[in-house]
Amino acid sequence: MKLYELAAADGRRFSPYCWRIRMALALKGMSATPAPVEFQQIPALFGGTGKSVPTLELDDGEVIVDSFAIALWLDEMNPVRPLFTSSTARSHCRVIEGWANTAVAAEVRNMIIMDIWKAQSPENQAYFRASREKRFGRRLEDIQQGREDRAATFNTVTMAPLAHALGHARWLGGNEPDYADCLVFGSLVWGPIISDFPILNDGPVKDWFARCCGLLKDEPEVAALRF
Amino acid sequence: MKLYELAAADGRRFSPYCWRIRMALALKGMSATPAPVEFQQIPALFGGTGKSVPTLELDDGEVIVDSFAIALWLDEMNPVRPLFTSSTARSHCRVIEGWANTAVAAEVRNMIIMDIWKAQSPENQAYFRASREKRFGRRLEDIQQGREDRAATFNTVTMAPLAHALGHARWLGGNEPDYADCLVFGSLVWGPIISDFPILNDGPVKDWFARCCGLLKDEPEVAALRF
Repeated sequence: MKLYELAAADGRRFSPYCWRIRMALALKGMSATPAPVEFQQIPALFGGTGKSVPTLELDDGEVIVDSFAIALWLDEMNPVRPLFTSSTARSHCRVIEGWANTAVAAEVRNMIIMDIWKAQSPENQAYFRASREKRFGRRLEDIQQGREDRAATFNTVTMAPLAHALGHARWLGGNEPDYADCLVFGSLVWGPIISDFPILNDGPVKDWFARCCGLLKDEPEVAALRF
Repeated sequence: MKLYELAAADGRRFSPYCWRIRMALALKGMSATPAPVEFQQIPALFGGTGKSVPTLELDDGEVIVDSFAIALWLDEMNPVRPLFTSSTARSHCRVIEGWANTAVAAEVRNMIIMDIWKAQSPENQAYFRASREKRFGRRLEDIQQGREDRAATFNTVTMAPLAHALGHARWLGGNEPDYADCLVFGSLVWGPIISDFPILNDGPVKDWFARCCGLLKDEPEVAALRF
């Protein structure tokens, strides 16, 4: 299997959605050959039909697009160490996915968007700036501006559901990590990979984050993180 | 069983945590005699040991405090139609509980806090204003101020995880409602019960909210809601 993952000019992989799948693979004890691609290479994948990353390409040429779809497929193909222990868990993970996308990953993005831009090659910088400034209706500089204040709120308010859950269990999935952990970890880890801006304060959430990193110590971007 | 629930001067029950348990009872087909109490009556409960509501009092005099603890106990006592279908579901519900408390219920509160105050008896108004203004460091009027703008963000941003999940399943628990639905429904329904301020825009989230209300049509506060 080959996993197409978003990468910066220097090869660092930095997509929150791709890191969800890297953690999912680690939880299941599976591996996939990394196929790092930069933003503007995505549409050219698979004979011009590339849509988004992560995309998983199977040995028979079949491709699976979308991180949640890939996670479901991993469990179908290999039921050992399930990411979703029941259909209820799957539905709960949709709630947590929605929160991870629209709160966690979005707020991290707004704190590091200039650092993401800086890490791209010149042509990808131009693409990233134009597409994101159109999408968000503001200059990248203005989006990132004020991140110190927002980081404080991020820790006390946005992270509050995690701190609450981690007061009751070691992982978001309970005694063992599951796809809920992958969802939130992916939404956080791209920050410190692509940016020096500190996002997590010391405390139970950072401790859990470090435990997740420990599961991914074979991935160079994660192994390079310092706490 | 008797369920102690927070009530306003006219008897309307309006606690987000208590409504979680009313919905949980409805899902399980169980009932509990309502024991409505106003804010200042709580400490006097059970010979002066009352802590918070909801509190469930069993026929043998045992009391269970805290909504999540009550939900767990309901499943233990009566495993039929479980609120939590697995230990993973329980852990996921802790994440969703954290989000429901710190995002949903907190933002609804900030939109209706003056309406909550208005619905109390004079002595409970005084208690509520003093305790909340101390806790939040602002006057009730200032907390509620600007709620029209915040309601727009509440629908598009705060409710985004729900809209996302409801794009994949009819209930947050999947094909059937479970405690995840109770958590979020309770965090929303106290708004329209105690305030005329419209909180939910039309759309899939409001449709799900209406379905939840349909499960509670025997409760007068819910039956009185108009969409």
